[in-house]
Amino acid sequence: MPGPLNVGLVGLGRMGRVYAQNLAQRVPGARLAAVADEKADLAQAVAKEFEVPKSYGSHRNLLTDKDVDAIVIVTSTSTHKDVIVDAARAGKAIFCEKPMALSLADARETMRIVEKAGVFFQMAFQRRFDASYVAAKKKIDEGVIGVPVLMTSTSRDPFRPPLEFCDPKVSGGFIADMGVHDFDVARMFMGEVRSVHAIGGALAYPEMKTVGDIDNAIISMTFENDTIGVVNLSRSAVFGYDIRGEIWGTKGSIQIGFLQQTPIVVMTETGITHDAVPHFMQRFERAYLTQIQDFVDHVRTGQKPSITGHDAIAAMRISLAAARSHKENRPVQVREIDAGQ
Amino acid sequence: MPGPLNVGLVGLGRMGRVYAQNLAQRVPGARLAAVADEKADLAQAVAKEFEVPKSYGSHRNLLTDKDVDAIVIVTSTSTHKDVIVDAARAGKAIFCEKPMALSLADARETMRIVEKAGVFFQMAFQRRFDASYVAAKKKIDEGVIGVPVLMTSTSRDPFRPPLEFCDPKVSGGFIADMGVHDFDVARMFMGEVRSVHAIGGALAYPEMKTVGDIDNAIISMTFENDTIGVVNLSRSAVFGYDIRGEIWGTKGSIQIGFLQQTPIVVMTETGITHDAVPHFMQRFERAYLTQIQDFVDHVRTGQKPSITGHDAIAAMRISLAAARSHKENRPVQVREIDAGQ
Amino acid sequence: MPGPLNVGLVGLGRMGRVYAQNLAQRVPGARLAAVADEKADLAQAVAKEFEVPKSYGSHRNLLTDKDVDAIVIVTSTSTHKDVIVDAARAGKAIFCEKPMALSLADARETMRIVEKAGVFFQMAFQRRFDASYVAAKKKIDEGVIGVPVLMTSTSRDPFRPPLEFCDPKVSGGFIADMGVHDFDVARMFMGEVRSVHAIGGALAYPEMKTVGDIDNAIISMTFENDTIGVVNLSRSAVFGYDIRGEIWGTKGSIQIGFLQQTPIVVMTETGITHDAVPHFMQRFERAYLTQIQDFVDHVRTGQKPSITGHDAIAAMRISLAAARSHKENRPVQVREIDAGQ
Amino acid sequence: MPGPLNVGLVGLGRMGRVYAQNLAQRVPGARLAAVADEKADLAQAVAKEFEVPKSYGSHRNLLTDKDVDAIVIVTSTSTHKDVIVDAARAGKAIFCEKPMALSLADARETMRIVEKAGVFFQMAFQRRFDASYVAAKKKIDEGVIGVPVLMTSTSRDPFRPPLEFCDPKVSGGFIADMGVHDFDVARMFMGEVRSVHAIGGALAYPEMKTVGDIDNAIISMTFENDTIGVVNLSRSAVFGYDIRGEIWGTKGSIQIGFLQQTPIVVMTETGITHDAVPHFMQRFERAYLTQIQDFVDHVRTGQKPSITGHDAIAAMRISLAAARSHKENRPVQVREIDAGQ
Repeated sequence: MPGPLNVGLVGLGRMGRVYAQNLAQRVPGARLAAVADEKADLAQAVAKEFEVPKSYGSHRNLLTDKDVDAIVIVTSTSTHKDVIVDAARAGKAIFCEKPMALSLADARETMRIVEKAGVFFQMAFQRRFDASYVAAKKKIDEGVIGVPVLMTSTSRDPFRPPLEFCDPKVSGGFIADMGVHDFDVARMFMGEVRSVHAIGGALAYPEMKTVGDIDNAIISMTFENDTIGVVNLSRSAVFGYDIRGEIWGTKGSIQIGFLQQTPIVVMTETGITHDAVPHFMQRFERAYLTQIQDFVDHVRTGQKPSITGHDAIAAMRISLAAARSHKENRPVQVREIDAGQ
Repeated sequence: MPGPLNVGLVGLGRMGRVYAQNLAQRVPGARLAAVADEKADLAQAVAKEFEVPKSYGSHRNLLTDKDVDAIVIVTSTSTHKDVIVDAARAGKAIFCEKPMALSLADARETMRIVEKAGVFFQMAFQRRFDASYVAAKKKIDEGVIGVPVLMTSTSRDPFRPPLEFCDPKVSGGFIADMGVHDFDVARMFMGEVRSVHAIGGALAYPEMKTVGDIDNAIISMTFENDTIGVVNLSRSAVFGYDIRGEIWGTKGSIQIGFLQQTPIVVMTETGITHDAVPHFMQRFERAYLTQIQDFVDHVRTGQKPSITGHDAIAAMRISLAAARSHKENRPVQVREIDAGQ
Repeated sequence: MPGPLNVGLVGLGRMGRVYAQNLAQRVPGARLAAVADEKADLAQAVAKEFEVPKSYGSHRNLLTDKDVDAIVIVTSTSTHKDVIVDAARAGKAIFCEKPMALSLADARETMRIVEKAGVFFQMAFQRRFDASYVAAKKKIDEGVIGVPVLMTSTSRDPFRPPLEFCDPKVSGGFIADMGVHDFDVARMFMGEVRSVHAIGGALAYPEMKTVGDIDNAIISMTFENDTIGVVNLSRSAVFGYDIRGEIWGTKGSIQIGFLQQTPIVVMTETGITHDAVPHFMQRFERAYLTQIQDFVDHVRTGQKPSITGHDAIAAMRISLAAARSHKENRPVQVREIDAGQ
Repeated sequence: MPGPLNVGLVGLGRMGRVYAQNLAQRVPGARLAAVADEKADLAQAVAKEFEVPKSYGSHRNLLTDKDVDAIVIVTSTSTHKDVIVDAARAGKAIFCEKPMALSLADARETMRIVEKAGVFFQMAFQRRFDASYVAAKKKIDEGVIGVPVLMTSTSRDPFRPPLEFCDPKVSGGFIADMGVHDFDVARMFMGEVRSVHAIGGALAYPEMKTVGDIDNAIISMTFENDTIGVVNLSRSAVFGYDIRGEIWGTKGSIQIGFLQQTPIVVMTETGITHDAVPHFMQRFERAYLTQIQDFVDHVRTGQKPSITGHDAIAAMRISLAAARSHKENRPVQVREIDAGQ
């Protein structure tokens, strides 16, 4: 086994700190060599807290650091393209939080540069590393449920983000922002998507209309292999974070569910109840750790990335087709979304 | 309370026998006065088994029996219209198993005659009498989950019928045959449907193609009040009969589920498992009883029917819109389905 | 099949009315021919409601009625012996709600008279007719969990009865009153009990001390075949009626549970919750019906009773041993409880 | 915050390796400075794998290492006393896997020496750090279920250890070996135990008799505050590792359960099933990590140990009383077990 992978982390917001802690303390084989954030003070503070040797106010400076072998990008989406491109040109291995870019054109251009540079590039889709999705995939690959023919996937946030983050120009739109994991999972379980049809509305938060977005949606999908699926999305699961799925096969089905954070049940006069999962970090804490470990291991041992930029683009195209379907109220073929040259 | 309602039962197949037993032995206020079936021998045998005074080989003879106040129709769908019309003209109170007719035109003509005759007419939708749907409706009416904004409804049969019954000319087609209860429940929870979009295929049983039908479908729905819903249908739930639903509101959600027939869990080396519900009669046995009791009570006490022919027609129109959507691969407005004069 | 069984029902309290309805309306093969209650007015009213031909103010008069083939006894426990003895001497088939008597001596004397008279005699233990216990027994008999080696059984009432009914002279004491079904089930699953040890106290309702009884208890048991078990009893399951059990075998286990009355789950800001079972009649409604149907069928077809007076005496002896163990704070052999001549 | 705690780890069997990985890679604030094992080769190999600077063949050599501030003891139980005493005399902070010693006398003598030395001493009871027990304790402390009056605790291993480890001279006996966590949890939820009564037998593995031990037991307990409890123990949960508990209070109950390793449900023709928890490390992996983190944090920040040697002795006395109760078939007062001077 080679020496540890020296990682530079860019972007130190809430998610960035989770990556900092994982890389500094919990990922064998990784060494958090440097952190960077536009707020140089924040970078210094995080470096001190997690005993990181160096901190920078600009990702460009971090990229010139010879101690840095690989870069983990957790900045705001609008900067992803620039940081990826700079890192690719600097020859670093790259891990990028989703989404890769806000537009399909940017994502494609980014991938062209990455591929030309020939660097290792891995996208984040933490759900693929979650124990329940991994177990479901394994059962399916073992043939336990025969051939999958229909899938459902539900993602519900417990509340909407502040309105300024709901603007589709910032968020990429509700369908893409909430649904991209479901679309990725759909591809993992069923294959490529041929067409989608989306319905939805600003049903729980009428104020969403002021930013031109919606808060609940249903997206039905036909796959290239003629199987079918449906994704249910919501921002109003007031009881907690709610991620579920079901794959129906010719010989059985698999349900994936996780409504409960601790396995206790409380029984009082007001009913029989249990705790819920408050939000995504509680639900996927371990998947995030497994995912970044996977990146470090693959870079160190020269394996191919588990999730490529093409996976990210594929999920993005489904999102765009779904958003167009909702706007035009008709089924949309994914191939209508420009597939690039 | 008036005297017992003298009921004549027409159609003594598998479901007919269930009605015979319920009416003869389990429904206070009802007296099973006569049974009829085209097979006069069968009618005689059933009459003997359940101690019914009279049996007939034709529903027309039963309708001339002055001892019969009300008629319960469990014949094959193709005869529903004739029996209803004859019963209406004979002035009997009528209970009819779903569906009312195979075509919308027939259903409408039937209703015109029924309304002209002014007789009591109730359609069967046993799911409305099932304890879990009743409890969910009550919670919603109490405001527990706020305003419903999205609903899902899943119906899965454990196996397909024999191919000869799968022919859409006999069954009315998979979407109508399997989904009509879901469409009815959708109306109960969310209101009238504005448009539907259906996808599906012969995915589990390729031989379905030979009769021109499918075996799995997803139907997304937009309601008149702008809320949304989705119905998932299947004939291949090999583990058992699977009826579930979920209503998402602004203040919470309600799941309806019933995968387990007896509340026991078996834990062995092969896993932790429980029994499943084998088929619809095990799942809805009690709902069927409650439903026919409701009919008898309403007729006896002069109340209006709980479920009208218009309810049946409304669900039928959604089914037809969904079938057309699947055929034409586009969203279909329910109003495109001729609403009659 | 012979003609219907003409049943006389004695005792028309809350449970008596349930039997009246079942016998009058829901049990094929039974005809409720007469009812009796010390309150003749009540007997008349019930007779009218359920269209029973005759009503009496005394069970003795009912027993002289030639139209009555069998008697169902739902009177207060203190009168059971007298009614049974009178019925046995009148040659009627007898069904008796539990317990058979308040003292073991009375129970034994009663059985001697019953056996001398040679009449059909069946005791009520409705749990043996509950679908979950029946299914568990079937799995065990099929060998699914190998040889049973340990069992647990939990019975919890949602509240205590009014204090005047808690007096052990009336109730027979908490351990017997609550535990007799668990002791009967223990015998059904594991075999005869050799010794018991009981602990407990007036822990939830201190006022129980004023009547000399307790409200929570744990009774551990060793069976004749050296296997072991434990019964947990409580009067303070404020969330609802709680009946559970588990049988551990050499090849697996079976859990029996039923905390939920309807299969719906409600998810709101206050948590994820479901309804509970309010009390025993909701939980065992169907078992009571199945049980009385079993009595009617067995009498009509000349089969032996499903549950005998000896079963009742066996459960009573375990109760008495447990009460003595609690009092003397030592393990008590069931054979210490006088086994009769 | 002070500098990292330099930990020496003694004992590198299966559990020792888990501690090595946790201390080397997952516990912020800890530095695994040295490892020791009687097998010096093994110590070298583990040191290399986890990049530990030093390795030793004897705990005594490790204890003279000035770089070692604290010691974590995961050796076989028979050596615990010696290692603890040596470490105490060397002035190291001590963390010791349970049990502290095989005999009560040894445990007491050990504690006297530890206390005289004045070193930090913490015992391992990982269940106290498991999310479900922590959540249950929190609910109880918040008064959610009122005053606890009855508790049940179930621990079941999926199989028995090899016979040579079942000898009570090695294992301390089935009741102590399996039950000590339950007894500790009982103290945590309910308070001190006054008396116990145990029944059990070699019911699943008759060969246990050859080593003079049993494989299933029920231990009922009365607490000093008059509340009651029961512990169910087994070595034959062939379906998986099974840890459950329930606390009954005056205002409600809390169930703790964990039969499922991943939240997926598989539904096929053979039934509806889910994965089980294979063994204790899968169930308590995170609790072990949290526990050792707690030790490191408490030593570094000068807080008192979370779990003391007195806690270990208290649980040991309950185990001994239970074993005596089983042997003598009578309730045993815990105070009968010599409480030391």
